[in-house]
Amino acid sequence: MHLRVILPVIGNALLDSVRAEAAAWAAPGTEVDVVSLARGPASIESEYDEALAAPGILDRVREAAADGVDGVFVTCFADPAVPAAREIVDVPVVGGFEPAVLTALGLGERVGIVTVRPNVLPMLHGLFRRYGLAERLGAIRVVDIPVLGLDDHDALVDRIHAQAADAVARREADVIVLGCTGMLGVARAVQDRLEKDGAYVPVVDPTAAAVTWLERADRLGLRASRTTYMPPPAKERVA
Amino acid sequence: MHLRVILPVIGNALLDSVRAEAAAWAAPGTEVDVVSLARGPASIESEYDEALAAPGILDRVREAAADGVDGVFVTCFADPAVPAAREIVDVPVVGGFEPAVLTALGLGERVGIVTVRPNVLPMLHGLFRRYGLAERLGAIRVVDIPVLGLDDHDALVDRIHAQAADAVARREADVIVLGCTGMLGVARAVQDRLEKDGAYVPVVDPTAAAVTWLERADRLGLRASRTTYMPPPAKERVA
Amino acid sequence: MHLRVILPVIGNALLDSVRAEAAAWAAPGTEVDVVSLARGPASIESEYDEALAAPGILDRVREAAADGVDGVFVTCFADPAVPAAREIVDVPVVGGFEPAVLTALGLGERVGIVTVRPNVLPMLHGLFRRYGLAERLGAIRVVDIPVLGLDDHDALVDRIHAQAADAVARREADVIVLGCTGMLGVARAVQDRLEKDGAYVPVVDPTAAAVTWLERADRLGLRASRTTYMPPPAKERVA
Amino acid sequence: MHLRVILPVIGNALLDSVRAEAAAWAAPGTEVDVVSLARGPASIESEYDEALAAPGILDRVREAAADGVDGVFVTCFADPAVPAAREIVDVPVVGGFEPAVLTALGLGERVGIVTVRPNVLPMLHGLFRRYGLAERLGAIRVVDIPVLGLDDHDALVDRIHAQAADAVARREADVIVLGCTGMLGVARAVQDRLEKDGAYVPVVDPTAAAVTWLERADRLGLRASRTTYMPPPAKERVA
Amino acid sequence: MHLRVILPVIGNALLDSVRAEAAAWAAPGTEVDVVSLARGPASIESEYDEALAAPGILDRVREAAADGVDGVFVTCFADPAVPAAREIVDVPVVGGFEPAVLTALGLGERVGIVTVRPNVLPMLHGLFRRYGLAERLGAIRVVDIPVLGLDDHDALVDRIHAQAADAVARREADVIVLGCTGMLGVARAVQDRLEKDGAYVPVVDPTAAAVTWLERADRLGLRASRTTYMPPPAKERVA
Amino acid sequence: MHLRVILPVIGNALLDSVRAEAAAWAAPGTEVDVVSLARGPASIESEYDEALAAPGILDRVREAAADGVDGVFVTCFADPAVPAAREIVDVPVVGGFEPAVLTALGLGERVGIVTVRPNVLPMLHGLFRRYGLAERLGAIRVVDIPVLGLDDHDALVDRIHAQAADAVARREADVIVLGCTGMLGVARAVQDRLEKDGAYVPVVDPTAAAVTWLERADRLGLRASRTTYMPPPAKERVA
Repeated sequence: MHLRVILPVIGNALLDSVRAEAAAWAAPGTEVDVVSLARGPASIESEYDEALAAPGILDRVREAAADGVDGVFVTCFADPAVPAAREIVDVPVVGGFEPAVLTALGLGERVGIVTVRPNVLPMLHGLFRRYGLAERLGAIRVVDIPVLGLDDHDALVDRIHAQAADAVARREADVIVLGCTGMLGVARAVQDRLEKDGAYVPVVDPTAAAVTWLERADRLGLRASRTTYMPPPAKERVA
Repeated sequence: MHLRVILPVIGNALLDSVRAEAAAWAAPGTEVDVVSLARGPASIESEYDEALAAPGILDRVREAAADGVDGVFVTCFADPAVPAAREIVDVPVVGGFEPAVLTALGLGERVGIVTVRPNVLPMLHGLFRRYGLAERLGAIRVVDIPVLGLDDHDALVDRIHAQAADAVARREADVIVLGCTGMLGVARAVQDRLEKDGAYVPVVDPTAAAVTWLERADRLGLRASRTTYMPPPAKERVA
Repeated sequence: MHLRVILPVIGNALLDSVRAEAAAWAAPGTEVDVVSLARGPASIESEYDEALAAPGILDRVREAAADGVDGVFVTCFADPAVPAAREIVDVPVVGGFEPAVLTALGLGERVGIVTVRPNVLPMLHGLFRRYGLAERLGAIRVVDIPVLGLDDHDALVDRIHAQAADAVARREADVIVLGCTGMLGVARAVQDRLEKDGAYVPVVDPTAAAVTWLERADRLGLRASRTTYMPPPAKERVA
Repeated sequence: MHLRVILPVIGNALLDSVRAEAAAWAAPGTEVDVVSLARGPASIESEYDEALAAPGILDRVREAAADGVDGVFVTCFADPAVPAAREIVDVPVVGGFEPAVLTALGLGERVGIVTVRPNVLPMLHGLFRRYGLAERLGAIRVVDIPVLGLDDHDALVDRIHAQAADAVARREADVIVLGCTGMLGVARAVQDRLEKDGAYVPVVDPTAAAVTWLERADRLGLRASRTTYMPPPAKERVA
Repeated sequence: MHLRVILPVIGNALLDSVRAEAAAWAAPGTEVDVVSLARGPASIESEYDEALAAPGILDRVREAAADGVDGVFVTCFADPAVPAAREIVDVPVVGGFEPAVLTALGLGERVGIVTVRPNVLPMLHGLFRRYGLAERLGAIRVVDIPVLGLDDHDALVDRIHAQAADAVARREADVIVLGCTGMLGVARAVQDRLEKDGAYVPVVDPTAAAVTWLERADRLGLRASRTTYMPPPAKERVA
Repeated sequence: MHLRVILPVIGNALLDSVRAEAAAWAAPGTEVDVVSLARGPASIESEYDEALAAPGILDRVREAAADGVDGVFVTCFADPAVPAAREIVDVPVVGGFEPAVLTALGLGERVGIVTVRPNVLPMLHGLFRRYGLAERLGAIRVVDIPVLGLDDHDALVDRIHAQAADAVARREADVIVLGCTGMLGVARAVQDRLEKDGAYVPVVDPTAAAVTWLERADRLGLRASRTTYMPPPAKERVA
């Protein structure tokens, strides 16, 4: 299976770490490659960033389909341009939100999200409502670190754990979902600390969830419904 | 008051009719100008079109703010790029959905939408859920005419009336909202026919609703909340 | 346009201030007159007061229609007798709740209400549910001042600001609606203080919202649906 | 136990049949008396009728409390003035809706209502939403007979059965609630016909439900919460 | 009327106190007998206990029907095996949840539950959602005493009151439901203390609610719908 | 990976076909074994069957954990005894419902279920509500064939396709989930026919979904939350 990861930002600085993380979760037979955008923002932390990233993402989605890949992961928790992508290609496309949250719904009663900055809170609440899943949302917490400053691993684990542990203690969360695909390589450490606090609470890494979700979709032979995601009528488009 | 209408498509063919319609609904003292996009699709009939239109819309929104306008109407029922626009400017910005649907909610129990093509149905259902208003949605009906072929006025009235009357007869709608800002100048004719069928059922024209919504926002001195629409952090963006 | 404000209480003490406030929000060409009730309570602070006020309100609504007014504002946040009024006259009728809350829904994610006394809390929660809008309700807060003691302007601003600021800080509100039409002339001051606290949060004054809502309805030529508000069958009624 | 039935209409024509029906459902030791209103409408078939009836109902509620009754049944399915009544007296007060619908919720999945005229449909939908019970509502059907013409027993059974049977066949109802307290003495006949159609479907008579609900409340020693129904502040009231 | 109480646990230690409590709430003419299980757990404090108890409960339900009883109360708040029981017998069957919660819904806005141990919290939240009643749930609180250690009456009242009072003070509850049928004989004491705290808040005892619910069902002649609870097809079953 | 499939019925007649189907979906390295129950019903078509099957299922779950398996699939769409199983073992346990429905939620807007007999409809509606997913449920349809007569492959495909196609045509379903784990080997044929009807609509086989869900859970190292599924307190249990 051939998996294309689209890092929906400009610049190549993060490509290696994203590729390493995605490849680490992929099954032995899965080929993983990662591309970033020719146009878009340096990171996605707002509705504005998401809107600006969309055309560049869709360019990469179309390329991926032309390259014959078997699955596309747009590695951002806000699922940017994902519905549009499903309209224009037949290959399965996911962002960070759906695979992680649907996985979490199978693991416990209330889902708690820990994300990066308060700017994305309304967008995430909006996604839960749009997907019709808000009844199971327990809390969305913020560590308040800029996306581009997520590389201090220990501080990040400390901050996520503090928010997650408080949400669990207040019975607002039974499963934690890391609400930013830039929170790489910390899920297990947070989960271990939560378990030491008293009870096993699963922590879902959105990259891990997405990579394995697409591998599974490929094995099941399932892709997005064409009555929900109809092919766009042909017309002139200048993008 | 100075109102900027952004027609979120490329090409100038529709500018005159949109300007005429918007000006017809505007109050005497309101200056209305209309611009189309430098980049984007020829019409919006899918999530894909909406995603492609977003950066071009945001260009025009920023220009509008720089020009000192008092309100911006992105004339598309799907509210494309509206949350992003509210993050980057302080001037009130609306699309076609919110003013029309919030107006309708004050007029009757169940809202019925009549829109153009089935491609946008999931997007509209998604908007109702995202805005938390789905409990009042009665039905979304489709006339199945391409957006670019909406200029046969009589046929359009016939088709909209047929769908609206059926929804009213089945008690699925107490208020009709025209679900496409390209359905110009037909609301009153549809409403008159529905009333002849037996009962007054208001028909909300999204252009009329949006123009007057912005004029009212201007008089009230109210704009979008900065805790919902926080300013995006500064960063490199190539769009 | 001729606007009739019905102050749904007995006594004339408040007529001047209500008239001044409504007129201040009205457009230049709008004629505003205000009437109070011949029968009813001295203020509305309970379901009981609302029930007692209803027949007197409906008397005034019928008079207003006979006088040929273009819009009727029942100036109480609980929308007393508003559905009944829409059944018996064709002229648009609103209370304080619908125009203010529907306006707020277009301004931010979560609506926070600050009202006067705890007695009306269940009534307001019930209205949010009845209108199908509870998904967007963030919090209802109380300043705990009797309605008839709202005239100490500075103390009122302090109390409302304290509740609103706390709701904003806890992320329970992105827009504030003043939940009593007797809170006259304080919205802007509360909004300014909230902005000084850190972010612009709009504060909706229900009188301002209602007056301009009716002016807009008049311009749009829209009134309440007759499939929701059917004319009552003729019969004997002793009221 | 002493039960006061308030027939919330003017005129004495129906008093005997209502007393007979209520007494037939009451337990041996229960004393039942029935009063109608000094002021109000001849029947309740609209929000307008309900509003006009409220002060007259509240007069009778206060008298009932002064008379030391143990329960008050306002015999109208729309629960007119019931929240207000609970604010002003300590004795349990119910209308037709709550006892019947809460009983039905314990008998089957989806509740179907069969009521009299379409005028009350929005009011009933509004009650289901206000009470937070709409998730279990399957259908509201109408027999379209005026309330004052409900005395042709056989025709009434035919009409109710036709609507109920259709709702059951379409899987929109598992329990039927008669949505008008004027539908006296027909529940059992409708239930028998439904059972002959293929399956036992309970039919709840709102008078039976209310009388026995109050008797049970009396035995349990439970009355309405004073944090929901707070005593109205003292003030001048001219009603 | 003959009422059978099924104590859904093994052992006879509690039979006398349960019988005394049920008989105390029953009407003079009601015959009450109590049976425990031949197989099952010693108490129900988990989904696991509930699952293990089900076949033993269904044995007792079938016996009760064969004995010609008029109502069956499975005295556990989680309503274990109640839907299954309604499929196999025609006699009315209730657990502790439905009668108590439906009663509470008629007494105040928000229902607060005080239960025994945190293990049952997800089960109770799940029941509220399954019954479609979660919109009215205010809070579920825990006293954290094992079910088998509920016999220190004063300590139990203290603990329940502490949780209930806190929920009321935070406006999370207007009615309290005791969320364990083993909390015998304490409802009135808790209610009295809450009233001393400032306002009458009804406290619903699930045993009292269930016994009187069944007596009332018997008088109304109503049993569970056969379109919701269809008779199971005949087949081999080894239990 | 070692996967244990529990066929929650007595008898060995179906073991071979279930094993073949599960093994066909499993990854190359997955070891699959299948066991049926020592006690329980011959098939699950009611709440009663589900209740009777639970203790026998829990016996097999405990054995599976003792055998060191890595995942347990209780092959019934109603998820019988699954919450209880998660309380008593640490190994991941799923039924047919959660993996299939959560998968479907990622594929299209509205989920349509096609199941076997009407007896299970209330149970399935109850599961959607209990899991908080009912907002996305479009329709539950029934082919009305007994579970034990599902072996006529062509007739089964015809019947499922007829229901699915009708649900799609009425816009009640964008994804079809086969609502019985006994509908073996037909998903692809139904999906092909739906695509020939006009649009690709994915059809989710619950066995395929569950087997691959567990394999993915194993790779992700995620199991059920211990704050939702707490270990049952130790006590005497006779089952």
